[in-house]
Amino acid sequence: MAKAITSREENYSEWYLDIVKKANLAANSAVRGCMVIKPNGFAIWERMQRQLDDMFKETGHVNAYFPLFIPKSFLSREAEHVEGFAKECAVVTHHRLMNDPNGGGVVVDPSAKLEEELIVRPTSETIIWHTFRDWITSYRDLPLLINQWANVVRWELRTRLFLRTSEFLWQEGHTAHATAEEALEEALKIQEVYATFAEEYMAMPVLRGVKTANERFAGAIDTYTIEALMQDGKALQAGTSHNLGQNFAKAFDVKFSNAENQEEYVWASSWGVSTRLVGGLIMTHSDDEGLVLPPKMAPVQVVIVPIPKPSEELNTKAKELMQELKARGIRVTYDDDDKQRPGFKFAENELKGIPIRLGLGKRDLDKGTIEVARRDEKTKESQPLDGIVDHVANLLEEIQQNLFDRAVRFREENSTHVDTFEEFQAAIDRDIPGFVYAHWDGTTETELKIKELTKATIRCIPNDRVEETGSCILSGKPSAGKVVFAKAY
Amino acid sequence: MAKAITSREENYSEWYLDIVKKANLAANSAVRGCMVIKPNGFAIWERMQRQLDDMFKETGHVNAYFPLFIPKSFLSREAEHVEGFAKECAVVTHHRLMNDPNGGGVVVDPSAKLEEELIVRPTSETIIWHTFRDWITSYRDLPLLINQWANVVRWELRTRLFLRTSEFLWQEGHTAHATAEEALEEALKIQEVYATFAEEYMAMPVLRGVKTANERFAGAIDTYTIEALMQDGKALQAGTSHNLGQNFAKAFDVKFSNAENQEEYVWASSWGVSTRLVGGLIMTHSDDEGLVLPPKMAPVQVVIVPIPKPSEELNTKAKELMQELKARGIRVTYDDDDKQRPGFKFAENELKGIPIRLGLGKRDLDKGTIEVARRDEKTKESQPLDGIVDHVANLLEEIQQNLFDRAVRFREENSTHVDTFEEFQAAIDRDIPGFVYAHWDGTTETELKIKELTKATIRCIPNDRVEETGSCILSGKPSAGKVVFAKAY
Ligand SMILES: [Zn+2]
Ligand SMILES: [Zn+2]
Repeated sequence: MAKAITSREENYSEWYLDIVKKANLAANSAVRGCMVIKPNGFAIWERMQRQLDDMFKETGHVNAYFPLFIPKSFLSREAEHVEGFAKECAVVTHHRLMNDPNGGGVVVDPSAKLEEELIVRPTSETIIWHTFRDWITSYRDLPLLINQWANVVRWELRTRLFLRTSEFLWQEGHTAHATAEEALEEALKIQEVYATFAEEYMAMPVLRGVKTANERFAGAIDTYTIEALMQDGKALQAGTSHNLGQNFAKAFDVKFSNAENQEEYVWASSWGVSTRLVGGLIMTHSDDEGLVLPPKMAPVQVVIVPIPKPSEELNTKAKELMQELKARGIRVTYDDDDKQRPGFKFAENELKGIPIRLGLGKRDLDKGTIEVARRDEKTKESQPLDGIVDHVANLLEEIQQNLFDRAVRFREENSTHVDTFEEFQAAIDRDIPGFVYAHWDGTTETELKIKELTKATIRCIPNDRVEETGSCILSGKPSAGKVVFAKAY
Repeated sequence: MAKAITSREENYSEWYLDIVKKANLAANSAVRGCMVIKPNGFAIWERMQRQLDDMFKETGHVNAYFPLFIPKSFLSREAEHVEGFAKECAVVTHHRLMNDPNGGGVVVDPSAKLEEELIVRPTSETIIWHTFRDWITSYRDLPLLINQWANVVRWELRTRLFLRTSEFLWQEGHTAHATAEEALEEALKIQEVYATFAEEYMAMPVLRGVKTANERFAGAIDTYTIEALMQDGKALQAGTSHNLGQNFAKAFDVKFSNAENQEEYVWASSWGVSTRLVGGLIMTHSDDEGLVLPPKMAPVQVVIVPIPKPSEELNTKAKELMQELKARGIRVTYDDDDKQRPGFKFAENELKGIPIRLGLGKRDLDKGTIEVARRDEKTKESQPLDGIVDHVANLLEEIQQNLFDRAVRFREENSTHVDTFEEFQAAIDRDIPGFVYAHWDGTTETELKIKELTKATIRCIPNDRVEETGSCILSGKPSAGKVVFAKAY
C-alpha cells in the first residue's frame, strides 16, 4: 500500500509536503533552498510550459534568451528596483578554482577575482533593458514582445518545495512599446492570459486585480495579479504582470524616435509565472488520498488496471483500448505490473492523481463492460465497453469542469465581506480565513498596520470591484470600494 | 538592401559572425563571454529542442531538473572529473548585497559569506549522482533514464557566438543502469539518436566514433562523439555521449541490490548537445548571401512576397495560399511590408535563410502561375498555381535532401587518407584541411606531439573503421587502423 499521507485536517503543511514527496514530484537538494524537480513533477511543469508558450505565441510573443548573470552595477540603476530586489541573491566573485596546495580538494583561485561581481539573475529587467538599447532606435522597432524561459535565484531563508525556493524555473516576458497605453494594454492582456490559463487549464479560479503600492513589483507603475485561494484558506499569488512605464527605459537610456521623428523613452511591461504554479495546482485540488490533477494538466489522464492481474486476454484488450484512446488524443498507460494486487495499484494511481482509472477484468470483459473510476469524486461505475472511448473523453471534460466548479464553490464559501475591524479580525482568525473583502483608506500606513495586527495582506484591488463609498476598517477614513485581504503564501 | 556579408573566401570567421549578427541570431552581452540569443536564433534552438526532446522520449527518457549550483566539495569527489572540469567556472561566494554605506550603489555584504562556495554547474554529473543515491536502492529502480534542459557555465577566455560561450544552453542526459552492458548500450544508442538528428533534421552529415583517452570526458570510460565538417574544413564536435562505468557511482556511493540481493555499484552514462549545434547548422549550409536553413529546422519555411507590392487582390490570394500551406503543416509567412521593394525583400529573406520564396505577382496570377525560388540553389521557376501546395511540400523535402547531399559531397571531397607525416602535414596545411585519415600508434604522447606540430587533433576513432595494420605517421609504431584527424572548433 502507498504510505499514508498526513490529512489536511491534521496538518496542512505536512499534507502538502507528503504529497510532493510521495507522488515523487520534487525533493530538497544538497544545496540549501534549491529543489530537485523529479520526473513526475517536471512532467506537470512541461505541460504548463507547453500550454503557456502556445498562448504567448498566439498573442504575438517570441522567445529569446538573455544571460544568467547581471553585472552588479546594473541593479542599482533603477532606484526602486534595487530597493525591492537586489539584496538576497547569489553573488559570483571568482571565475576559477584550483587544486588546494595542501591537498584538500579544490579551493577558489584568489587570482581569479572578477573586477565587477556578477549577480545570478533574480529577474532580468536590468540586463534585458540594457540589451534593448541596442535593439530599439525607431518606432518601427516597436513593439518588442519577448519572452524567456529561465531559471532565477532569490536567496530565501524559509523555503517550501515549489512554493518558495531559492532557485526556481519561470518564464519572464519583457515588452517594449511606443505608447503608455500600449504598455498598459499589454500588462492587462497578459493578466488575462494568465487568468485564462489558471482557470481553463489548471481549473484554478483566480481573482484578477491590481496590487497596492506596497505590494507592487520594485520598479513598476502598477502590478496586476492573479490570486488563487488554497484549501487552507490562504491566498497564493499565482502570476503577476507589471506596467513598468518608462522607468527601466530611463534607467538604461532606451529611446526611440517616434513617427514625428522626436525622441522618446520607451514604455515597458514585464510579467512572469513560475514553478510555484505546480504548488498551487497541488493545493487547489488534492485530497487526503494524494494528488488530484485536472485532466488538461495530467501527464497521464487514464490508467488501465488489469484485474486481478495481467493475462494474455486482458493485455490484448488493454492494448486495443490504449490505441483507441491515444487516437483520440488521450494520454493513457497500462499498469502491467504483475507483482502488485489491484488494491495497491488503485492507491498508487490515486496518489499520483491520474484522473480516470479503468479496471479491466475477465468477468466484466465477458459481459462487455469495464469499471470506470474517477479520481476527483472517488466514485466508480460499470460502463459498456462499446462506446467507452467517447465516455472517457466526455468524462475527462466533466472532471476538468467539476474540479473548477468545486474550487469556485470553495472560494465562494470562503469569501467574506466585513465592515468593522472586529469582523475582519474574526474572519481572518478562522481556521480557513479565505478572502476577506473590506474597506481600506488607500494608505500604505494602514495596510502595514493591519498586516502587523492580523498577518493579513491586501492581495489585490479587484479589477471588477464595485465602487462604493465606505469607511476604512482600521482608520475609519473614506474608501472608494472594498479590497481583498487574506493571509498568503 | 541588406548590408553586405563578408565572403567566406575573404574571411571565414567574419563571414560567420556577419551571418549571426545580420540574420539577428545572437549578440554579445554586457557579461563577458555570455551571449544574448535573439528571437531568430532562439526559434532555431526551439526547433532543435522540440525534435530532440521527442526523440529522447521515444527512447524512454523523461525530463527532470537539478540545481544550478554545485557545492564545491562535490567537484573533487571524482578524481578525474575534477582534473578535467573544475577549473574555469563561476564561483558563488556570497548570498547578499547591501547598500554601499558610501552611497555608491550596492556592494557585497561581507557578513553574507557562504560557508561552502557554490559552483555554477559546468555539467551536472556530481549533483545528479549525489541525488541518485536517494533514488536508487534496488535493481527495480533501474534503469533511470533522465534528461534535463539547462544552462551551464564554463568560463571561457576566447568565445565565439554559439560555438563557444561561457554560458550556454544544452540538454544533459544522465542514466543509471544495473549492468555495464546496458550503460554501454545506452551511450551508443544516444550517439545514434544524435547522429540521426544531425543528419535527418539538420542535414549535417556526421562521423560516429569514439574519442581517444586524451579527448575523453573527464570521468568517463569512453566518450562517443559525432563530428561534423564545417565549410572551412575544420571539424565541429557536435554531440558526445559518455559511458561512465561505475566512476560516479563510486564517487557518490550509489549502490543497488541486484536480483540476487547483492550490493553493486550502479553503471552510468551521460550525454549532451548544446546551442553549439546552432553554430554548426549555420556553418554547414550558409553561403555568402546569408543563412541557409534546412526546411526541417527553419522556423519559417516559405515566405510569400507580393510583387511589386501588397494589393487587395494579392493579399486575398496570399491569405488563401497560406491557409492551404498551413493545413499541410508548412510554416509560412506573408511579407506584407508596403515600404520596401521586392529586391530588398528578396535579399532580406535570403539573409534569413527561408528555404522557399513564392513571388506572387498580378500578371502571374492572371496566367495562373507563381514564381518559386529556392534558397539553397538560388534558382527560380514559374509554377502553375494549381497544385502549388504539393509542389512546395515536395520541394521542401528536395531541399532538405539536397542540403544533406551537398554536405556529404563536401565532406567526401575534403577527406584524405595519408600514409606519411609529410602527406599529413600537407593535408592539414591546406586552405580547407578537412578530415585526414592516418595511422596512429595509440599513445597520448604521439597524439599531443602531432597536435603541437600541426594543430590537428584526433577527432575520433570511427565506429566503422576498417581494421588494417599500418605504421603511425609520427612514431612509425604499429597501428591497428586509421583514425580521423582535423583542425577543430
Ligand atoms: Zn544529500
Ligand atoms: Zn552593452
